[in-house]
Amino acid sequence: MNARQATATAHPNIAFIKYWGNRDSRLRLPLTGSFSMNLAALETCTSVCFDEDLVADCFDLNGVEQGGESLTRVSRFLDQVRALAGQSVYARVSSANTFPSGAGIASSASAFAALALASAKAIGLALPEKDLSRLARLGSGSACRSVPTGFVEWLPGEEDAGSYAVTIAPPEHWDLVDMIVVVDPREKPVGSTAGHSLAQTSPLNSLRVAGVPARLESCRQAVLARDFSLLAEVVELDSNWMHAVMRTSNPPLVYWSVDTEVVLWHVQAWRAQGHALCASVDAGPNVHVIALAEEQAWAEERLRTLPGVQRVMVSQPGEGARLVEQEVK
Amino acid sequence: MNARQATATAHPNIAFIKYWGNRDSRLRLPLTGSFSMNLAALETCTSVCFDEDLVADCFDLNGVEQGGESLTRVSRFLDQVRALAGQSVYARVSSANTFPSGAGIASSASAFAALALASAKAIGLALPEKDLSRLARLGSGSACRSVPTGFVEWLPGEEDAGSYAVTIAPPEHWDLVDMIVVVDPREKPVGSTAGHSLAQTSPLNSLRVAGVPARLESCRQAVLARDFSLLAEVVELDSNWMHAVMRTSNPPLVYWSVDTEVVLWHVQAWRAQGHALCASVDAGPNVHVIALAEEQAWAEERLRTLPGVQRVMVSQPGEGARLVEQEVK
Repeated sequence: MNARQATATAHPNIAFIKYWGNRDSRLRLPLTGSFSMNLAALETCTSVCFDEDLVADCFDLNGVEQGGESLTRVSRFLDQVRALAGQSVYARVSSANTFPSGAGIASSASAFAALALASAKAIGLALPEKDLSRLARLGSGSACRSVPTGFVEWLPGEEDAGSYAVTIAPPEHWDLVDMIVVVDPREKPVGSTAGHSLAQTSPLNSLRVAGVPARLESCRQAVLARDFSLLAEVVELDSNWMHAVMRTSNPPLVYWSVDTEVVLWHVQAWRAQGHALCASVDAGPNVHVIALAEEQAWAEERLRTLPGVQRVMVSQPGEGARLVEQEVK
Repeated sequence: MNARQATATAHPNIAFIKYWGNRDSRLRLPLTGSFSMNLAALETCTSVCFDEDLVADCFDLNGVEQGGESLTRVSRFLDQVRALAGQSVYARVSSANTFPSGAGIASSASAFAALALASAKAIGLALPEKDLSRLARLGSGSACRSVPTGFVEWLPGEEDAGSYAVTIAPPEHWDLVDMIVVVDPREKPVGSTAGHSLAQTSPLNSLRVAGVPARLESCRQAVLARDFSLLAEVVELDSNWMHAVMRTSNPPLVYWSVDTEVVLWHVQAWRAQGHALCASVDAGPNVHVIALAEEQAWAEERLRTLPGVQRVMVSQPGEGARLVEQEVK
């Protein structure tokens, strides 16, 4: 048999403590650790088939054949998988997202987590989770956090071998929801990979980096003790620090729109009224409102009526990357 | 004797809880109460001479004869003083600021507090402090807070008679300093008077307004109990709320520059390290760093080295508006 195939799924994740900036951009070794929750409601499903009849890698996404930069990024990732396996066979990669790619939700984390697992399996590598996480990291930094299940911490590591993510608590540990408030579904003007390289141009970067270990410790404690007040405080502070670094970079990266701020400050006011909600913003204008599940109905209704809000997608904590059983052909 | 003269001094103030937006813009009745500290190191000195030989009001500022909008604003204010006194005599007003007018420090508060006191005295009105504060308010809302001494609260009131400021604690009550970090000495693009009318165009305005009474209460408690942690929390939150309203107004008012943010986040980091500092920003890019006096030397040295910082002016808490003894001519 010339073709070896595997299929895997993975979820994107929302960072409670953000990843912004690399010590080594080629290896995607981050400046700091980070912490996230996988998002069960959103999923990428990816099949990889290594086939000796192929003369090049090929890649389709949501049924559309990809070329250019998109194909190149996948192909370079597969080069690393082939190097690990000591093989040189090309692959066909088919990937689909269950969430709209134009919804402003970064899909590279789930994409490279699923691709790492499917390609490793298909090429015959039996990698422990830690090494799958490392592998996914090479495709997209935050993808390493989509490999383990539930609430996840990315240990920054000193070098490639030590930079991977681990589960801190399983998805069922805490009944949280992430309400993704979409105010602008367009592609972001500066992607994360390009943005990371700007971190060091901000006069605030080293201050942000110096504060992360204490915030990571608070976040870990908050999750383990299910302490929402502590979580809210550290999640908002850390998100604000990242955006302060972004806005003070050269050139400045301004991801917040007026609509973003309107959502953020409503969340702030509602929490002051006693609701268990907090907000976090990634490299785009949309807002992730993290809440106790019991707040969902109340908050979702109100979020949908805010000016500029186009949709709200809700997700529970999710599993890590998983193989999908293949039918025998 | 045809000429009646008086001279008064007053200090500008830094708002711990901000004034932004009016219920009645003609009477400058504010949407909310506010709270401030007078700034001893900065002063306006104003002489008013009502003289029956004059055929119009005239006004010089720092030795330069004023016309246009500047003269009109003073003259309209004097109309109200004349109406109170039942007189119609014109006045010569001479005013000087001991602080550079191009330093980005709003001078209208000290200007109208000094003008209110000097003109009332010169025209023969014996007004209690409360009524002087009301009168100053008609010239510039925040001027009412520069009339009483020390730490001051502006009671918003239901109508003109109830909207004035009172002392909560004298200047010597708490050994604080305001380090005014000047990152841009230019005039602000939109003045406060014009800006106030935009408050209601922000979808966050009513939320901000709803939260002020609780923040005022915290601020009053913090000052009375000399609780710096509580003060820092409420001062920064309230300043951030005002700027959120400003940025989400239509048109948006964006007063923060990159340099502003760099200062703000350094203050945040230093406080996290245990220093008693907090930051507040008015309608401009400069940052007021409020601190325990014992932090001044440490902080001032560091603030001066931050990128974009052009100067740092330091002030202790100040007195209210005062008459200056006149030599008998």
